Amino acid sequence: MAIDFPRAVGWHDDALRIIDQTLLPGEYQEIDLVEVDDIVEAIRGLRVRGAPAIGVAGAIGLVASLKAHLSLPAAEFRARLAEAARHIRSARPTGADLGWAVDRLLRVASGMPDATNRDLWTRLRAESSAILEENREMCRRIGEHGATLLASGSTVLTHCNAGALATAGMGTALAPIYTAADRGVGVRVLASETRPLLQGSRLTAWELSRAGVEVTVLTDSMAASAMARLGIDLVIVGADRIVANGDVANKIGTYGLAIAARHHGIPFYVAAPSSTFDFELSSGDQIPIEERGAEEVRSGFGRATAPAEVAIYSPAFDVTPAELVRGIITEHGIFEPKNLAALKTAVARQSTE
Amino acid sequence: MAIDFPRAVGWHDDALRIIDQTLLPGEYQEIDLVEVDDIVEAIRGLRVRGAPAIGVAGAIGLVASLKAHLSLPAAEFRARLAEAARHIRSARPTGADLGWAVDRLLRVASGMPDATNRDLWTRLRAESSAILEENREMCRRIGEHGATLLASGSTVLTHCNAGALATAGMGTALAPIYTAADRGVGVRVLASETRPLLQGSRLTAWELSRAGVEVTVLTDSMAASAMARLGIDLVIVGADRIVANGDVANKIGTYGLAIAARHHGIPFYVAAPSSTFDFELSSGDQIPIEERGAEEVRSGFGRATAPAEVAIYSPAFDVTPAELVRGIITEHGIFEPKNLAALKTAVARQSTE
Repeated sequence: MAIDFPRAVGWHDDALRIIDQTLLPGEYQEIDLVEVDDIVEAIRGLRVRGAPAIGVAGAIGLVASLKAHLSLPAAEFRARLAEAARHIRSARPTGADLGWAVDRLLRVASGMPDATNRDLWTRLRAESSAILEENREMCRRIGEHGATLLASGSTVLTHCNAGALATAGMGTALAPIYTAADRGVGVRVLASETRPLLQGSRLTAWELSRAGVEVTVLTDSMAASAMARLGIDLVIVGADRIVANGDVANKIGTYGLAIAARHHGIPFYVAAPSSTFDFELSSGDQIPIEERGAEEVRSGFGRATAPAEVAIYSPAFDVTPAELVRGIITEHGIFEPKNLAALKTAVARQSTE
Repeated sequence: MAIDFPRAVGWHDDALRIIDQTLLPGEYQEIDLVEVDDIVEAIRGLRVRGAPAIGVAGAIGLVASLKAHLSLPAAEFRARLAEAARHIRSARPTGADLGWAVDRLLRVASGMPDATNRDLWTRLRAESSAILEENREMCRRIGEHGATLLASGSTVLTHCNAGALATAGMGTALAPIYTAADRGVGVRVLASETRPLLQGSRLTAWELSRAGVEVTVLTDSMAASAMARLGIDLVIVGADRIVANGDVANKIGTYGLAIAARHHGIPFYVAAPSSTFDFELSSGDQIPIEERGAEEVRSGFGRATAPAEVAIYSPAFDVTPAELVRGIITEHGIFEPKNLAALKTAVARQSTE
């Protein structure tokens, strides 16, 4: 693909390198992290965000944090691995990819009980790189499948950022758009700004604009108006966790968009790699919903935007019921949310390959 | 009523006095205006906002601006009145009250073709005060009618600010809440912050909190989540213009809330005085929708929140179709939006009294 994407997450020497996304679009700065506390702070503080990118960052960060401790006795090294895994795993509760990625590394470690610290670390480093490469490939395949939904002149509404900045590759919700654009299929994107932290206007607008894709920003409250007046062909969003019945947890505001899309007869799609699926949970009401701090709403722009004494309701995510979702675009194809059995089979087949 | 409301608009000596609402909640400052350009700037810049308050401010401002010109020849004084009226009338296009109030003063002037400047001015000053007093009384009566919808423990969602700050009295959408609170009926309010200019978090939260009403702020994107998780009994919003078929223009975001309310089976009410009705227009698609500047979305908080080069969609209002509105709370009672003939009759009867 001719488009050069920002690399949200990766290895740099033996450190986790991320773009500090809290500074965009004003400032582009990469930071390298090796301490568990710094990695957790970066995830919790949304320096790296987007469920797939968090998964990759958690995996790389976990391995990077162990490098300085290779000379410990094996039992202590393993204990440190377990403790770091526990700490990183709990950095954010809603997204599925973080737990998925950390658990994958822990399974590798369990499978090498007698390995030296050095051999184990080398194997874990390779596994975290595999997670990154697989994520990049998942994005590419999501783009291939999703691009079939787009025609020249299509207008797509997206929410938050499920682009290159949210993954190790070209994104999930934005992958079909990039793929279409790369093939010369001109698509117009509407990006809702995504209060309180404006991932839509700060990040999605930045990366689409950088890639030469036509993008218009609107506040979250303008989406229904845009559906009625501008003509939107489809909505594509990412996901933080998708459970067995097809319910989707994603950035707060997704649910309202899905309701508005249904009202206007606009198809609503979710794009996510299989690492975002959690078949352990049967329904969306079981998904833990992270509540963010009141200050993000009350004074997120360095100025009081609400009286200090009033209460704030600030869930970071909402749950969109499966019945509002037309299809889930995965690396294995597009699935009906009410019928994820086929996807589950495909995922299981792949994981035993 | 025991509650002491802020006075958003009124006469101070012979000047228009308003609270500069762009500074709230951080700073409370009243400003006095007599120049037409300053009055237009204050309306356009949202120092005074809310359709009913704009109507009252336009009327008082128009009269205040003429005081310095009483010594002009009568024809020139009348020409200045016409010119100031035209200028003020065009300050904002969507709300109905501004044109309604200015036209009312012009009709008074037309009815006194031979009056001296001084006599005409005195009569116009009295008329503008009558508009203010009537608006205050309309709010009180909206509160009486609307309070019948509320029970102790009711949770009400409102959007933008249709409170005391948006009127000369206790507000429209908030009037039922204040009336209930004054009677000891404890109501809980959820205030959506209302991007881009945050009238909900800055103004509604401020005035409700000041009055001792329990209020929780949420971003606009969280409203659907709150409907699903918190339990909302009804939605009450204000209006900028209501047309003959019952369609309602109100602050951008209202339409999306109405769709979400319908999805959850939550009754959706609009509160507005009869000055907000425009029976000249038959349907909402005829309402002129003000498009605001891109900077309000792109850097409304003194910091770049979107890349400078991307396009912005920023309508200040949207239109909620009558079929999504359960009832319109007016000073004459609560009317079904699909059946405004009865209201039209009541308004016509009153205006000929």
